[in-house]
Amino acid sequence: MMTPPRQKRTVFYLSDRTGITAETLGHSLLTQFDGIEWETVNVPFLEEVDKARHISQRINEAAQRDGQKPLVFSTLLNPEIIEVIRQSNCRMFDFFETFICSIEEELHQPFARMAGRSHGLQHHLSYFKRIAAINYVLAHDDGINPKNFDAAEIILIGVSRSGKTPTCLYLGLQYGIAAANYPLTPDDMHDLQLPKALASEDIRKKLFGLTLGAAQLHSIRNERRPNSQYASLDQCRQEIQWQESLYGLFDIPYLDTTYISIEEISAIILNRCGLKRQLYG
Amino acid sequence: MMTPPRQKRTVFYLSDRTGITAETLGHSLLTQFDGIEWETVNVPFLEEVDKARHISQRINEAAQRDGQKPLVFSTLLNPEIIEVIRQSNCRMFDFFETFICSIEEELHQPFARMAGRSHGLQHHLSYFKRIAAINYVLAHDDGINPKNFDAAEIILIGVSRSGKTPTCLYLGLQYGIAAANYPLTPDDMHDLQLPKALASEDIRKKLFGLTLGAAQLHSIRNERRPNSQYASLDQCRQEIQWQESLYGLFDIPYLDTTYISIEEISAIILNRCGLKRQLYG
Repeated sequence: MMTPPRQKRTVFYLSDRTGITAETLGHSLLTQFDGIEWETVNVPFLEEVDKARHISQRINEAAQRDGQKPLVFSTLLNPEIIEVIRQSNCRMFDFFETFICSIEEELHQPFARMAGRSHGLQHHLSYFKRIAAINYVLAHDDGINPKNFDAAEIILIGVSRSGKTPTCLYLGLQYGIAAANYPLTPDDMHDLQLPKALASEDIRKKLFGLTLGAAQLHSIRNERRPNSQYASLDQCRQEIQWQESLYGLFDIPYLDTTYISIEEISAIILNRCGLKRQLYG
Repeated sequence: MMTPPRQKRTVFYLSDRTGITAETLGHSLLTQFDGIEWETVNVPFLEEVDKARHISQRINEAAQRDGQKPLVFSTLLNPEIIEVIRQSNCRMFDFFETFICSIEEELHQPFARMAGRSHGLQHHLSYFKRIAAINYVLAHDDGINPKNFDAAEIILIGVSRSGKTPTCLYLGLQYGIAAANYPLTPDDMHDLQLPKALASEDIRKKLFGLTLGAAQLHSIRNERRPNSQYASLDQCRQEIQWQESLYGLFDIPYLDTTYISIEEISAIILNRCGLKRQLYG
């Protein structure tokens, strides 16, 4: 079977503010289509009509170059700017316009048309919670300060490079969760015991294990210390086999992270452990 | 003027996978409406029809309790599950259905209908970049290892608790940027000089300053060390005045973060410094 020629297309993400919403939504939609080579143009903080005219020109140039209309995902709120963009040679997906009328109708009130509400600093309290969670994560990374594990909402465990630190940071930043982590080290591999710091009943209830395929661990460790014993496939296999036996023996819930992202790992842990997120509603 | 009675409403975020897209979309829209008290129900990983029936029942119960239809934001892809939800007593906003047909038409191909593509681990390379960026941030937090500042894409500076660390972590996690940070400490306040580690021309080009209102800094520091000299309003005022003079004297671009979130600070820095994001297209 012949592979069809790859389409080349351009996508613009336009926003009055950070662009996070426009990018998240557009990205979700476009990942449903294969075989297209995307040229991505992010334009956050598009607040002036003159700048909009310049962007409109760039859209028209991209249309000519690609021989196809660029896609434009917009969370713009300023009607004058929207109108300038709309007159370009593009296919525009306007998130607010699409949904806001039905929501207005359902809530019996007009919307505020104020930019920057979704990722702005609205709630002083949640800012503090977020900062407190990040501080907790940093102060309880990689086995530091296990005497404060009482205050942890969850404690991730796993061998070196199994993804504990990035996951804890994401849980702290995104959800305001006080997440600690503790390494499983080869020094302990001689028997099937949990490290002493984790052995008490109160702590064990909060443990969640991470694991991954040996080949993936090997490739991650190899980036860090190429061709070391630490990174060898054989060493990775042994450590993973040992940690999964530990998880089984002590009835510790765990997750294989080989094919999933930090966002997914975090959402799955939150869901499976019934943790209450502290941020965003 | 009388304040109108606050409406109580329920909102459901339903997804086959993490729920990040559904929540981002709904949150952006709902923050445009004031005076409503939202009860939020997040349902990620909704993959079974039985579970959908249970959620449908919860939607109906919420409708009865509130005396108003719940809003449902969905990124569900399974038609059978969508149908179960659609028959509940709700106002449903179906993200894929709304946009996907126009996009299919524009791209001349059907969509994949595969869940978990947007926040899944699709690109091995970007996973490594992300992990490398997070490692860089952690190894260059709060003035550690300034001898490696050559490798930094940006170096945030500011007094204690001005938001350097959370911003660097966000830049690393979300955008894959190697962001370092270096504290401005009262020890140096006797003159208007940059700390020695930052004085070379190559480093100075990468500096970006954070500042904030004295009252805000006071309240953040007070959380950490209540009623200390460190947290006093007077001390905060002096440190801020000093750092802003430094920024001015050395022509360092800077940002007042008093009213903005970590997401916004990060997006503004990215935009203003022309940094190239390493993740998501």
